[in-house]
Amino acid sequence: MTGPIIVRTVARMREHVRAWKADGQRVALVPTMGALHEGHLSLVRLAQTRADRVIATVFVNPKQFAPHEDFDAYPRGEAADVEKLTSVGCDLLFAPSGEEMYAPGFATAVTVSGVSEPLEGAARPQFFGGVATVVAKLFIQSQADVAVFGEKDYQQLQVIRRMARDLDIPIEIIGAPTARAEDGLALSSRNAYLSPEDRAAATALPAAMKTAAAAVAAGGRVDEAEQAAKAALLAAGFDPVDYVEVREAGDLTRLGPGPIGQAKGRILIAAKLGKTRLIDNMAVG
Amino acid sequence: MTGPIIVRTVARMREHVRAWKADGQRVALVPTMGALHEGHLSLVRLAQTRADRVIATVFVNPKQFAPHEDFDAYPRGEAADVEKLTSVGCDLLFAPSGEEMYAPGFATAVTVSGVSEPLEGAARPQFFGGVATVVAKLFIQSQADVAVFGEKDYQQLQVIRRMARDLDIPIEIIGAPTARAEDGLALSSRNAYLSPEDRAAATALPAAMKTAAAAVAAGGRVDEAEQAAKAALLAAGFDPVDYVEVREAGDLTRLGPGPIGQAKGRILIAAKLGKTRLIDNMAVG
Repeated sequence: MTGPIIVRTVARMREHVRAWKADGQRVALVPTMGALHEGHLSLVRLAQTRADRVIATVFVNPKQFAPHEDFDAYPRGEAADVEKLTSVGCDLLFAPSGEEMYAPGFATAVTVSGVSEPLEGAARPQFFGGVATVVAKLFIQSQADVAVFGEKDYQQLQVIRRMARDLDIPIEIIGAPTARAEDGLALSSRNAYLSPEDRAAATALPAAMKTAAAAVAAGGRVDEAEQAAKAALLAAGFDPVDYVEVREAGDLTRLGPGPIGQAKGRILIAAKLGKTRLIDNMAVG
Repeated sequence: MTGPIIVRTVARMREHVRAWKADGQRVALVPTMGALHEGHLSLVRLAQTRADRVIATVFVNPKQFAPHEDFDAYPRGEAADVEKLTSVGCDLLFAPSGEEMYAPGFATAVTVSGVSEPLEGAARPQFFGGVATVVAKLFIQSQADVAVFGEKDYQQLQVIRRMARDLDIPIEIIGAPTARAEDGLALSSRNAYLSPEDRAAATALPAAMKTAAAAVAAGGRVDEAEQAAKAALLAAGFDPVDYVEVREAGDLTRLGPGPIGQAKGRILIAAKLGKTRLIDNMAVG
C-alpha cells in the first residue's frame, strides 16, 4: 500500500491541493495532534466519503497548551502515524514544524467569545484561542473544501464552526461520531496515560453519561441527572469532576435545572482519573 | 462610462471572483470606509496596474470605532462613491450591510499584538482588533490576489501585513503612497470636518513632519526632532498632540533618542485640530 505524501511546508501542501482542484477534485482536511488511533482513522474514512482527496494534519499545537500542561509529554510518533494513515489510504500528511506554523514575530490570535467560555474554556483559559488560531491557519493554508472533526471534542467543534462561519472561510465542517472502545470509553490519545486499574474504572464515565442523558431525555430534571452522574463518577474514583452539564447543543448555553422540554441538549463531562483528565459528551433528547 | 457592479453579499461577490479567476484574471481588493476622495481613487488606479479586476469595498466597520467615537457621524454617501468609482473604471463595489458582515451571534475576533500596541493602538485600544477582524474577513470573502492600502494609515498597513502573513492568507499586500493636497495635507475623509481656518492651519502637520524627517535623516537626534515638531504643531493650534514618534519602519519599535544610523525609520504623528484628529507619517532616512 502506498503511504501518504508527506509535506512539511504550506507551500508544498498548496501545490498538491492546487493540482487536485485543477483536476476537479474535492479536498478534505482532518486536523489532528498525531498519536493517531482508531478514532482519527474513522475521521479519515468519513472524510473519504465526502471528498476525493484527504489531507491529515499532525501538529502538536503549543498555543493550546498552558505552561503547566502536557505539551512536552504529549505522545508523538510519526512513523506509527504514517503507518496508520497508510492503512486507510490517506492521500497526504501535512506535518509542519513549529516554526513553519509560527514564524518568528508571529503575533496574531483568533479568538471566539461565547461558546468558548464555559466548560473547557473555564478550565483551560487559553485552550480555545490556541485551537481557533491554528485551525483558522490550517483551513486557510489548505483551502480544503471540507473538514472533519470528532464530536469527542464537542465544544471545540462548536468553536470551530463559529470561527469558520464568522471569518467566512469557505469550508464545510462535519462532526464525526465519537469512536469508542467496546466498554464505551471514548478513544483518546490521552487514554495511553491510564494505568490498567484506571483504564478499567474509566468505563464509569460513559456509563454515567448515558444514564444521565437517558434520564433527561425521559423528562427528568437536569440538576438531578447531573448530580447523579457526578456522584457515580466520584464513586468510581474520578476526582475532581470538573463538570457534568447539560447544555444547548449549538451555542452551549445552560439548560435546566428542570426538564429541557423540546430543546436539543448535549451532556458534557470532564473529570480526572489519577493524573489523566478525560472528557466526553453525547446528545440528549 | 459603465459603473461598477454593485453587490451586497459575500456570495455574489464570490460568484464574480470565481468567474474572473476561471478566466485567468487576477483580482485586486481596495478596502475602504467610503466617503471616497482622490486618495482612494489613487489606490484603485494602483490596483489596476497589479490586477485585471479591481473590487472596492465600502463598509463603515462598527468594530473599529469605540462607543464615544464618530461611527454614526462618519461620512456616508454611496451615490457619490459610485460616481467616483465609475470615473476610474472600478469593476465591482462590495457594499455589504452590517448584518452581512456581522451576523447575529458573531463572536470571533482577530487580534495582532506588538505592532498594533503603540501609537494608534494606545490611543484607541479596540481600533486595530476591529481593523484586523474586518480585513481578515474581506480577504477571505473576496479571495483576492492582491490588496492595496494607503500608507496614510501606516500602522494599520503594518498590522494588516502581520495578520495576513500570520494567518497564511494568500494575498499580496501593497502600500500606496499617501495622496496629498497641494499644500501637503494628507487626504482624509475626516478633513471634511475641518473649519476653513483649521483647514488652513492643518498644513503645519505635514510641514513639521517633513522638517523632522529631514533632520533625523541628516543625522540629527530623534528626541530633538520630535520635540521640535511637537512645538511647531502646538504653535499652529494643534492640541493635544497625541504623538510625534520616529519608529522602525517594519515592526514600529522605538528608534532614538539619538541618531538612527542605518535604521529604516518612519515618523508618525497624530494630533487634534479643533474636534478633528489628524494622522500622518512618512519615511525617515
